[in-house]
Amino acid sequence: MSQLPHRIEHDLLGDRAVPAEAYYGVHTLRAVENFPISGTPISIYPELVRALAAIKQAAALTNRDLGLLDARLCDVIVRACEEIRAGALHEHFVVDVIQGGAGTSTNMNANEVIANRALELLGHGKGEYAHLHPNEHVNMSQSTNDVYPTSLKLAGYVGVHQLIDAMQILREAFGDKAREFADVLKMGRTQLQDAVPMTLGQEFSTYEEMLGEDIARLREAALLICEINLGATAIGTGINAHPDYAGLVRQHLAAITGIPVLTAPNLVEATQDCGSFVQLSGVLKRVAVKLSKVCNDLRLLSSGPRAGLGEINLPPRQAGSSIMPGKVNPVIPEVVNQIAFEVIGNDVTISFAAEAGQLQLNAFEPIIAHSLFKSVAHLRAGCLTLAERCVRGITANRELLRRSVENSIGLVTALNPYIGYANATEIAQEALITGGSVYELVLQKKLLTREQLDQILKPEVLTQPRPPIGLK
Amino acid sequence: MSQLPHRIEHDLLGDRAVPAEAYYGVHTLRAVENFPISGTPISIYPELVRALAAIKQAAALTNRDLGLLDARLCDVIVRACEEIRAGALHEHFVVDVIQGGAGTSTNMNANEVIANRALELLGHGKGEYAHLHPNEHVNMSQSTNDVYPTSLKLAGYVGVHQLIDAMQILREAFGDKAREFADVLKMGRTQLQDAVPMTLGQEFSTYEEMLGEDIARLREAALLICEINLGATAIGTGINAHPDYAGLVRQHLAAITGIPVLTAPNLVEATQDCGSFVQLSGVLKRVAVKLSKVCNDLRLLSSGPRAGLGEINLPPRQAGSSIMPGKVNPVIPEVVNQIAFEVIGNDVTISFAAEAGQLQLNAFEPIIAHSLFKSVAHLRAGCLTLAERCVRGITANRELLRRSVENSIGLVTALNPYIGYANATEIAQEALITGGSVYELVLQKKLLTREQLDQILKPEVLTQPRPPIGLK
Amino acid sequence: MSQLPHRIEHDLLGDRAVPAEAYYGVHTLRAVENFPISGTPISIYPELVRALAAIKQAAALTNRDLGLLDARLCDVIVRACEEIRAGALHEHFVVDVIQGGAGTSTNMNANEVIANRALELLGHGKGEYAHLHPNEHVNMSQSTNDVYPTSLKLAGYVGVHQLIDAMQILREAFGDKAREFADVLKMGRTQLQDAVPMTLGQEFSTYEEMLGEDIARLREAALLICEINLGATAIGTGINAHPDYAGLVRQHLAAITGIPVLTAPNLVEATQDCGSFVQLSGVLKRVAVKLSKVCNDLRLLSSGPRAGLGEINLPPRQAGSSIMPGKVNPVIPEVVNQIAFEVIGNDVTISFAAEAGQLQLNAFEPIIAHSLFKSVAHLRAGCLTLAERCVRGITANRELLRRSVENSIGLVTALNPYIGYANATEIAQEALITGGSVYELVLQKKLLTREQLDQILKPEVLTQPRPPIGLK
Amino acid sequence: MSQLPHRIEHDLLGDRAVPAEAYYGVHTLRAVENFPISGTPISIYPELVRALAAIKQAAALTNRDLGLLDARLCDVIVRACEEIRAGALHEHFVVDVIQGGAGTSTNMNANEVIANRALELLGHGKGEYAHLHPNEHVNMSQSTNDVYPTSLKLAGYVGVHQLIDAMQILREAFGDKAREFADVLKMGRTQLQDAVPMTLGQEFSTYEEMLGEDIARLREAALLICEINLGATAIGTGINAHPDYAGLVRQHLAAITGIPVLTAPNLVEATQDCGSFVQLSGVLKRVAVKLSKVCNDLRLLSSGPRAGLGEINLPPRQAGSSIMPGKVNPVIPEVVNQIAFEVIGNDVTISFAAEAGQLQLNAFEPIIAHSLFKSVAHLRAGCLTLAERCVRGITANRELLRRSVENSIGLVTALNPYIGYANATEIAQEALITGGSVYELVLQKKLLTREQLDQILKPEVLTQPRPPIGLK
Repeated sequence: MSQLPHRIEHDLLGDRAVPAEAYYGVHTLRAVENFPISGTPISIYPELVRALAAIKQAAALTNRDLGLLDARLCDVIVRACEEIRAGALHEHFVVDVIQGGAGTSTNMNANEVIANRALELLGHGKGEYAHLHPNEHVNMSQSTNDVYPTSLKLAGYVGVHQLIDAMQILREAFGDKAREFADVLKMGRTQLQDAVPMTLGQEFSTYEEMLGEDIARLREAALLICEINLGATAIGTGINAHPDYAGLVRQHLAAITGIPVLTAPNLVEATQDCGSFVQLSGVLKRVAVKLSKVCNDLRLLSSGPRAGLGEINLPPRQAGSSIMPGKVNPVIPEVVNQIAFEVIGNDVTISFAAEAGQLQLNAFEPIIAHSLFKSVAHLRAGCLTLAERCVRGITANRELLRRSVENSIGLVTALNPYIGYANATEIAQEALITGGSVYELVLQKKLLTREQLDQILKPEVLTQPRPPIGLK
Repeated sequence: MSQLPHRIEHDLLGDRAVPAEAYYGVHTLRAVENFPISGTPISIYPELVRALAAIKQAAALTNRDLGLLDARLCDVIVRACEEIRAGALHEHFVVDVIQGGAGTSTNMNANEVIANRALELLGHGKGEYAHLHPNEHVNMSQSTNDVYPTSLKLAGYVGVHQLIDAMQILREAFGDKAREFADVLKMGRTQLQDAVPMTLGQEFSTYEEMLGEDIARLREAALLICEINLGATAIGTGINAHPDYAGLVRQHLAAITGIPVLTAPNLVEATQDCGSFVQLSGVLKRVAVKLSKVCNDLRLLSSGPRAGLGEINLPPRQAGSSIMPGKVNPVIPEVVNQIAFEVIGNDVTISFAAEAGQLQLNAFEPIIAHSLFKSVAHLRAGCLTLAERCVRGITANRELLRRSVENSIGLVTALNPYIGYANATEIAQEALITGGSVYELVLQKKLLTREQLDQILKPEVLTQPRPPIGLK
Repeated sequence: MSQLPHRIEHDLLGDRAVPAEAYYGVHTLRAVENFPISGTPISIYPELVRALAAIKQAAALTNRDLGLLDARLCDVIVRACEEIRAGALHEHFVVDVIQGGAGTSTNMNANEVIANRALELLGHGKGEYAHLHPNEHVNMSQSTNDVYPTSLKLAGYVGVHQLIDAMQILREAFGDKAREFADVLKMGRTQLQDAVPMTLGQEFSTYEEMLGEDIARLREAALLICEINLGATAIGTGINAHPDYAGLVRQHLAAITGIPVLTAPNLVEATQDCGSFVQLSGVLKRVAVKLSKVCNDLRLLSSGPRAGLGEINLPPRQAGSSIMPGKVNPVIPEVVNQIAFEVIGNDVTISFAAEAGQLQLNAFEPIIAHSLFKSVAHLRAGCLTLAERCVRGITANRELLRRSVENSIGLVTALNPYIGYANATEIAQEALITGGSVYELVLQKKLLTREQLDQILKPEVLTQPRPPIGLK
Repeated sequence: MSQLPHRIEHDLLGDRAVPAEAYYGVHTLRAVENFPISGTPISIYPELVRALAAIKQAAALTNRDLGLLDARLCDVIVRACEEIRAGALHEHFVVDVIQGGAGTSTNMNANEVIANRALELLGHGKGEYAHLHPNEHVNMSQSTNDVYPTSLKLAGYVGVHQLIDAMQILREAFGDKAREFADVLKMGRTQLQDAVPMTLGQEFSTYEEMLGEDIARLREAALLICEINLGATAIGTGINAHPDYAGLVRQHLAAITGIPVLTAPNLVEATQDCGSFVQLSGVLKRVAVKLSKVCNDLRLLSSGPRAGLGEINLPPRQAGSSIMPGKVNPVIPEVVNQIAFEVIGNDVTISFAAEAGQLQLNAFEPIIAHSLFKSVAHLRAGCLTLAERCVRGITANRELLRRSVENSIGLVTALNPYIGYANATEIAQEALITGGSVYELVLQKKLLTREQLDQILKPEVLTQPRPPIGLK
């Protein structure tokens, strides 16, 4: 590397050549060498990069307000941060998403890129840290241990709200179908066995309702990650921070990001605690579990075309088989199932990483962040794909569905209040063995008259509560 | 069995001898034979049995109010339920905690015990169901599919609040220690490496704070399981239930139990949804993860007695070794760690079971219930044991702790604002290599005067934010 | 307690009254008070109690052989152990299955029960340890740290082989059905969509084969837990053990138990390592995952009776619903699914506990043991129940199955080699839209003659590879 | 897109413009649009791309051998495959690693790239499938359902052996340290409490041994994934495959790849079964759990530099803190811990995906593959980094270690056989309270003579079994 254009930087391990064009510095370089794990740089998460810049900007403004940072230095730091927030220089955030060091390499990567861009804005060359230093100026009043978790929370907050937007779209898609299918009668099933009638609209409304609840839970979890520990510095005692720093930096950060951040009441606790990440991951797992259940249902209801339930049709999206011509598979629900499985696994990873934290810091936040960000991003992609490429195109096989109700043995449940559970059981058993219909069997046994039966078994009224009809 | 005193009962599989003294009936008997899995009957969870009785009582009162149930039958059903709620007849709740059938066997066990006890109160013999029938009267307007999940929620609600009480006790124990140790200086650590000073009181206050947050999260999760689906009957359409049933039964149930139950807005959704259990389990996992982290800390801080950190002493509770005389181990934190591991595993079980639900019902709620109830009960036992048998007896090795701060290289962090990160790094490295003290090295290099150093390095003020001292 | 008949025992915490009738002593008593967690005593695992006795017996014989233990003392220890192995005194193994202390309490419980029974056999009173001491004689040359993991391995070995026996029964049940259904044609499905024909016998043969493979994997995993660390004593260095002890005790233990135990090559490693438990749990999880998949299939194939696939019938085992008369549910597969979910959760618990081991010992083996033993026992119960109460009674709906093949669009796959993938795709699409048959459409389009079609589409030959028929 | 140079391709959804330069075709394009999930194409796993090419090559040769494929077409297919196996055209494998469709898109991507490259070699243009068709020629005698799992197994086999190589390097690094530290006495610890003496060499030898065992388990698991289902075609019945195909293609594949592949005995079972992936993942989890435990130990033993155990020093790899000058953290073990947490989470994902398979196929193999490949690749990177950047540079603080043994109370264990457990307990307790030494206390109490003590307490002999010294 020393043959290529470069500059020399220094750290506690000695001197090191850094590529001339690199905005990052020696600390970043060491980290890149130390962590050749996934090959994926942190720039894959642009919201994280933006969050780091927002924090550095807020800190610079606060330090200037407190008289600790020269206004000229503050100004160039702020300009560099704004450029990054606008999308510039992300390609210089090169440390691996899986890294040791509790996020120090991510924080130093940010400090170095911002310092070198700020130096340029001051008219200096990259690496001329005597004028503006990554640690002393960009990182002033800060520690990785408050900057890094705060950046994860900001990025997580944005990501979760993007996910909520996608869930809202999926929810509407289900809601539209619920209304479209409001009059389609079908057999409900429990334990995969025919139960009692319902409408296909009721079935789809459950998915709408479910997503609504999940959105509510996600909003709550997102609020919890608004509690930040900026001002905690190294371990929460606020060493090297001005007593007014925490309060002021929070205000600047809220103004810059528009996120309602709050300072944690106990900064020592907040610095070591991953509880809000665990909670958020738990809610994401909940979303995943239920989304997977819905996709299981969609795949089951659309099974066929001839030897399956065949109740609904998913829109074809690609040829389903390299060997079976004309086969179309439920590929969109299938991919969402797999995202759900990934999210559930990520939750276990996060539990492990959170549990492993020791004393004043959790050193394993990088894998927590990586797992959370993947869960959020993939769930979002899954919801959008499911809404647009599957749910919106679902159609119902109305005739088949109606027939399944009319032939059903499950209708017998509605007779309970009139002929008793024991008689009803016998009718059901006889219908099953003979292949006969419940309606005819009841008549045959003279348990009820045809008029009574017609009143009770009207399928349309079976799908909601009603007072008993005065027969007895 | 037919040799012993017995009565004959009938179901769709035919006739069956039931032990004469049994309050349960044929359905329970079939279930006992079908599910010889864990050997643990549901009576292990008395709150579940009480919850079932409360629901049956509320249903009977509602059915009477609606003119569906004879007042005399209602009266004996209510009396039977009250006896069970007071603790009687629990030994007749014999179906296995791990069971197929989506809880039907648990519900039928309750129906049968209540029916037979009510028959006795009416002066009839057990099994004389013509007078009062488990399905037609005790289960009137109900289905397993609304009774069972509701009973789990009631029992869960009570259990969670018992857990919260135990956490409160543990929280106070940590809080008392935080105050006791408020003036004990020590080195904080990040990534197991010496960082900067703090107090032992701050360290213990994090545990207090953490428990406070967890309690708040548990309260939220407990509220979510107050949303019940009673009135949904088989699949949520309310078949065979009076339109006023759901509203009335909720009122009776709230009055009987004192729990603020709410009827879910979409009963079809509520009947198939396990989201609130998944959420609650996720929060229990959060509690477990953090409790385990605390126990890891306690074990680490008390490591020794001579070749460990030796900062605190846990009270000895038993001889630690069958071979090493005088060895005392941190057995109480160890058992809490293991409870935490169990709870995290239970959460995975619950995720699996919740995801596996199909269409209008989740058939796997029994294992969800069993896992949740174990988590709640064991966490509660763990918190109480930890508070009473460990935390309350913790003492500090104050002298060792103070010395560790005085000898620390980490003090150098406080010099950053005065001598810069680069100079400070050099001092730290030299101290490490030579074994020297930061204080002396700074003096030696004439970076600061003794007076300045004394002002900056006063350990007591290092444990909180402060404005920079005006040196430069 | 001191009012009741008792004796006084002493440990490092002081004097303590022990109930006069108790065979356990002060160490056990302390543990019972310290760990009031699950309420389940270790005697729930009789194979564990037997294993402890076998180890103590082997150790006594070895110590006698080495001249370290008086023959008379050895004799009574051996007699006490044999009584326990025959089933006596298990009710005195009272420590909780969830316990701190790395198994010390379990080991001390064994030492104390054996010592007190041996004292009786010597004609002394319980607690007269001057004559025969739990630690000095019963535990001679041992430590919890080699005794406890060894006992878990012995008990695990027996349990796994009991599980294998149950799996063998289940495997035969599936094999019998595979042969019974060998000639039943049906449509195979991939991704829940109709694929190509197969026989129901082939479908059931996969379950037979799968169990055979799982049994093979379990046998391998069981062999790994035959590697024991007896002779390691406290940390694997063999302190206080005679150099010949490890070899001799292994021989005695193998002779007593009939289990092919081996001494680990590196006892320091073997003492801290939980790898073989993690491996075994991983294989149990594999068994669970596949068993659950089979049960999912059985529930799906038997869905109906009218609005489901209805391909097979599971034998009815109990009434399925408290509200829906005549409903029969797949309760046996459902309970096996839930066991599987539990086993998968247990595997996560075990991973956590294994990972948390530190330095020379894993202190969390009790929860590993509890989780493993539950997994093994419940899987065994599940396999037996599934075989006897479900699989053996399965019947096929042959007519429905044959019709599903004849009507199938999937037959078109067989035409690929003759008319090409593109033509075949068009035929399939047309059949789907028009509801027509593949056979007629091919004829209509004159792509093949009736004779050719009959030759190619003979369903019976579609279920195995065959050379192309010479048409082109 | 139609403005750019393109060609038109056709599938069951209609016509579609494909970029002119693309070697993939319409099926791949649909998949790219359907699965915009992770943004990571399957080319991230070059061994998977190579495996697909190897299978297509083997199939072409077999089809030619059987007289089903024209030799000229076979020839160009083989040449295209060889180019891909040599590393060409990987950038055309563009479908997302997370995809629905059970791998069909991956298989079709391979079919299309190979077909188009083969067409070029024949002198035709891309997309001129009348001359050589992706499905009819490249995919001849195959289905995604046998090709895809086989490709995962081949790629997995190669990956696992690359991991084993890395583990071997790590194992040697630990072995070298074990020998280097063979004479360094230290206190062993159980439950974080001082236990009895050992050598640092013994401690490191456990890591060497552990890795050796894990390598053996991985080799076994790798053998299991050599069992392939090529020849099964769609569901295992071998439809459209020649009876000799399965045997021949296996031979060609083994010859091409050098991997000892075997054809599964029951192809229907093999086509739906993910057992060998679950097993492999379970073993990877085992590796992860133990590697994480080792890293926990390394971090603990190197804690300090002054307020920790300080027994060993890890080589510094980067500045540890943005605020604490001179701080050096155990960043390499930390990154390996996090990889382990990811692998454990991946195992849960795989369990979910495997369990969710239905009937004749598991549609969720893509997420199984992605999770497995990540686990393998990251573990490999972690082992190499740990070996080269950490273990090889570890040094011991010999003086501190020796002192810890000399001051230890744990030495008292060695006196058990001479003064009894009860006396030894008293000595230990007194030493703890007074801070005195075991040696002096024993002398003071005249329990043993100085000569006897010197003989027994010689630290060097305490680290291995020895016969009792003849004192009594």
